[in-house]
Amino acid sequence: MRGAVLHNAGDVRFEERAEPTIVQPTDAIIRLSATCVCGSDLWPYRGIQAVAEPTPMGHEYCGIVEEVGRAVKSVKPGQFVIGSFFASDNTCPHCHAGYQTSCLHKEPVIGAQAPRLRVPLADGTLVATPEIPPDDLVPSLLAVSDVMGTGWFAADAANVKPGATVVVVGDGAVGLLGILSARQMGAGRIIAMSRHATRQRLAHEFGATHIVTERGDAGVARIMELTNGVGADSVLECVGTQESMMQAIHCTRPGGSVGYVGVPHGVELDGQALFWTHVRLHGGPAPVRRYLPKLIDLVLNRKIEPGKVFDLTLPLDQVAEGYRAMDERRAIKALLRP
Amino acid sequence: MRGAVLHNAGDVRFEERAEPTIVQPTDAIIRLSATCVCGSDLWPYRGIQAVAEPTPMGHEYCGIVEEVGRAVKSVKPGQFVIGSFFASDNTCPHCHAGYQTSCLHKEPVIGAQAPRLRVPLADGTLVATPEIPPDDLVPSLLAVSDVMGTGWFAADAANVKPGATVVVVGDGAVGLLGILSARQMGAGRIIAMSRHATRQRLAHEFGATHIVTERGDAGVARIMELTNGVGADSVLECVGTQESMMQAIHCTRPGGSVGYVGVPHGVELDGQALFWTHVRLHGGPAPVRRYLPKLIDLVLNRKIEPGKVFDLTLPLDQVAEGYRAMDERRAIKALLRP
Repeated sequence: MRGAVLHNAGDVRFEERAEPTIVQPTDAIIRLSATCVCGSDLWPYRGIQAVAEPTPMGHEYCGIVEEVGRAVKSVKPGQFVIGSFFASDNTCPHCHAGYQTSCLHKEPVIGAQAPRLRVPLADGTLVATPEIPPDDLVPSLLAVSDVMGTGWFAADAANVKPGATVVVVGDGAVGLLGILSARQMGAGRIIAMSRHATRQRLAHEFGATHIVTERGDAGVARIMELTNGVGADSVLECVGTQESMMQAIHCTRPGGSVGYVGVPHGVELDGQALFWTHVRLHGGPAPVRRYLPKLIDLVLNRKIEPGKVFDLTLPLDQVAEGYRAMDERRAIKALLRP
Repeated sequence: MRGAVLHNAGDVRFEERAEPTIVQPTDAIIRLSATCVCGSDLWPYRGIQAVAEPTPMGHEYCGIVEEVGRAVKSVKPGQFVIGSFFASDNTCPHCHAGYQTSCLHKEPVIGAQAPRLRVPLADGTLVATPEIPPDDLVPSLLAVSDVMGTGWFAADAANVKPGATVVVVGDGAVGLLGILSARQMGAGRIIAMSRHATRQRLAHEFGATHIVTERGDAGVARIMELTNGVGADSVLECVGTQESMMQAIHCTRPGGSVGYVGVPHGVELDGQALFWTHVRLHGGPAPVRRYLPKLIDLVLNRKIEPGKVFDLTLPLDQVAEGYRAMDERRAIKALLRP
């Protein structure tokens, strides 16, 4: 089969790769209904994260089970399944606590930008839908595999409560779905920090009540103005740079919470400065598995449509164009059809 | 009157100072029943924090109101009162949210190591007891003014829940009272990290179920052993150094919480490393005012005896010996009687 392989910064190729096979008895092989390019794929694509060797890309997926190892009990060939970007056993103490992305036996899922994919720990990782979903729901079910679950975790980690004032830093797909999540959780005011017209439109559609175009100190000043000098109850940090993290912390009221899900790159926090802010910090790789049943349900019942973040759909063999479009911010997120 | 003044590192003097007077109509003047030396007083005493000019010391206090400004309504001369180290109006949005140490109008209380003290914003800051308390309760009521409230906030910020496994990093007075707080909150196991026999004894008395003498990586390894490789639910960081903070974070399970109250000195957190730990962080200057009514009640009903941390009592004029004894770790905490 052919799939996406990153050779160097800016150099992603659609090329021949070995067919995935059952390696462990707990594995499943799925045929992808759709896959996509993640914001985190752009870190190595942009050279911010080193590429040591040619690397199969992609970790967002949904599709039909083709084959399972002999130890797999909860999913079977023919089912439509969705999983997270980390495989987890869903039985260890960390999984039981809802932190499946810190599973004691976690394994990354690698190479999903391809027609077929090996998923380790299939019983703990995959959730099957009751029946094969209609095709128009596939983008939203794909979104649940990572970007929607990550936005949801950002809102959850930021303790979004009914009536709360929420700020979302970052207008990428995760930030936009953080808005949708905060809305679902009953936030009163949702302030999106964005300076791109198309993203602002989607932000409004997902539930943003205010848009702030300023950044850095000016952005913080604007949030303070909008909150009568108090700050926001909950702030979702969906970028991962020093500037975005400090912007998030300084927008938050004392006792308020920052939920951070942008993988931090070069972020350093000064302990004493953080101390005096009184801000709560929680984040990390989103434990998407915890939220899968609920989010799948919301999609199947057409309560949410996270698939709207895909504003570019390409055949899988044009994966390189998907990376380029996202890198150049021509697209919010690129869906790939195998 | 004479009171404690820090001139330089290691040089605290008991010397003539101006009598405090009502400066603002919201002030109160109190005559101190007792005061003490704080762990945070040792930062400048040890030269870790610069001393720009001779500085009146002390911010822990309880005593009898002597005089109030004309705007003061809730306390009156003759009452026994306790306050926090930051004066707060207790009416602003941050106070209402329970973060009085981030009050929009906060003022530090300065110079409590003296016979008399000016307390700003008396209505918002001071809590009066129903009657003059018996003398044997004065040390515990004094403790409530800072060190007990700070230990309580550490446990609260670390989300201590009934049955939880709790680790306390730091065996100073705050750490010891963090143990007492965790016990009051129903913690199942309380692991104190301490290598001093007298402090271990008090730790046990306050409710510690285990003692770990190792520090740093070895300390973390021991906590992991005690928790079957999972980590603690709640960790109280009561020191404020890079080593103690990293020890706290690495002892915590994913999704668990670190409550940090040791004023960070030279602490830098790597954003990406923190991200992968999945740990919740909350801390800052303890909003003691929030807890005063509850903690005073627990002391008056003899449910807790935080005054046990005072293992040295001196007349106020020997304040310099109090600093020396704490600096050399001969005393946990020195109470001063004016």
